[in-house]
Amino acid sequence: MIDKKKIFLIVGLGLIGGSYARGLKKQGYTVYAIDQNQQSLDYALQEKIIDAGAVWEPDLLAQADYVIFALYPLTMVEWIKQYQSYLKPGAMITDTSGVKCHIVDAVQENLRADLEFIGSHPMAGKEVSGVQYSDENIFLPANYIVTPTDKNTKKGILFAIELAQILQFYHIAILSPQRHDEMIGFVSQLTHAIAVSLMNCNDTPNLEEYTGDSFRDLTRIAKINEKMWSELFLLNKENLVREIDDFAGALQDLKEKLIQEDVPGLQDLFKESTERRARFDKK
Amino acid sequence: MIDKKKIFLIVGLGLIGGSYARGLKKQGYTVYAIDQNQQSLDYALQEKIIDAGAVWEPDLLAQADYVIFALYPLTMVEWIKQYQSYLKPGAMITDTSGVKCHIVDAVQENLRADLEFIGSHPMAGKEVSGVQYSDENIFLPANYIVTPTDKNTKKGILFAIELAQILQFYHIAILSPQRHDEMIGFVSQLTHAIAVSLMNCNDTPNLEEYTGDSFRDLTRIAKINEKMWSELFLLNKENLVREIDDFAGALQDLKEKLIQEDVPGLQDLFKESTERRARFDKK
Repeated sequence: MIDKKKIFLIVGLGLIGGSYARGLKKQGYTVYAIDQNQQSLDYALQEKIIDAGAVWEPDLLAQADYVIFALYPLTMVEWIKQYQSYLKPGAMITDTSGVKCHIVDAVQENLRADLEFIGSHPMAGKEVSGVQYSDENIFLPANYIVTPTDKNTKKGILFAIELAQILQFYHIAILSPQRHDEMIGFVSQLTHAIAVSLMNCNDTPNLEEYTGDSFRDLTRIAKINEKMWSELFLLNKENLVREIDDFAGALQDLKEKLIQEDVPGLQDLFKESTERRARFDKK
Repeated sequence: MIDKKKIFLIVGLGLIGGSYARGLKKQGYTVYAIDQNQQSLDYALQEKIIDAGAVWEPDLLAQADYVIFALYPLTMVEWIKQYQSYLKPGAMITDTSGVKCHIVDAVQENLRADLEFIGSHPMAGKEVSGVQYSDENIFLPANYIVTPTDKNTKKGILFAIELAQILQFYHIAILSPQRHDEMIGFVSQLTHAIAVSLMNCNDTPNLEEYTGDSFRDLTRIAKINEKMWSELFLLNKENLVREIDDFAGALQDLKEKLIQEDVPGLQDLFKESTERRARFDKK
């Protein structure tokens, strides 16, 4: 396990950054934070989620052995370009971004030779943002994906895995950035695109009086941070467009069978979906 | 409230019929059941969910003041045509079908003059079937919709409302069969069509290892009873096809904005869906 004397720096103290801070503090680590919002820092200091924090303080950067970015992806790329000169020699860096290919490449291409950046994606969250809502328990049922490239060392990969273990993620997986982005285009981005479209496509008044659980379940994630998600969608455009096309094709196929009143065809679709979904219950 | 001496007959003792029986017994009513499966009847008698039950017994039909059908819609239409002559003079009849227009019309057109059929839709269920899974608590958070036509009396409408109150539904609404089927085509049938298509459109192996809550939420209802749902879809074909087209159009619009990298356009969609979804949280 990572030595308890090591110091973590979290850059971006929102919902995810704050939840990392809580999880690390709980295990006895020293946690520093950089955030542009002084109120978030004050809150975190008062709650003892962090040991020190500042809007800008070169000393915090110079002391940290491990740096975790919980910023929007493009903001992180810019931040690292601009401020990496302040980081401790040999520091290990990871992130929390929901897309990987462009981001990991952009960071690794411009990184100081003595630093290492290993991409990570904690698949956890809430429909609210801000350090006030942070909660280390969101990691307990969640998946954590490490996305190494050929620029990463074994030490870097093991660091990301240990970090996920410290934070008690349910499942840890290793995928290439490419495979990660394909997968996330389907299980996360396509589902958000569907929820948003479903929520927007019908404006019957008082619909909320007649809805059952199905509609609520399918639209829960239609409450979406528009700045972060438009960035995530654009950074994974090719994969998401392909997934939307594949899904729209399957829905069109169902519609055609319905128009043709092809009952055996519809029943086959329902049997297939039932069997496939059952695999997701086995845990 | 309905007189406790009145006798209820449930035709079709599955998940829903059994849950009605439990709810009615709990409030002290006498409940009879007709079901083609003797094992379901034996189970219900043993669990004291019903007072009497048979695969076929004219006496049970002749004694019931209130008859509740929990059969598949088309099976119910046939059953009533064939066996209504056995029902008690003046008996009040309702159902539990998820589609209304064709069904209510077909029943009311052929009904004995002294009987009344009032359509009802309890928007409750589980992803399993059978009386063994019946549970009157599934009604507590659920909506109940009464769908009167000009053939219904005030007495009939009040009966359906009282039944829903006895079973402790969360919300009771009255809609015409036409409005009901339009609404259900959107909130229930379109959501199931989406869940099935999402589950079937990608067969990447081991996907279950990487999924977060979003994908699980959107596909929960992809576990679907293929016989019942193909019947429900066909009975509401026009509405469902239109809802699929509207939804597919909204998804296509999102995709176009993504391809154009129209960030303000995407953000507008996300803001709209967030605002709309928030209305469904107010309870």
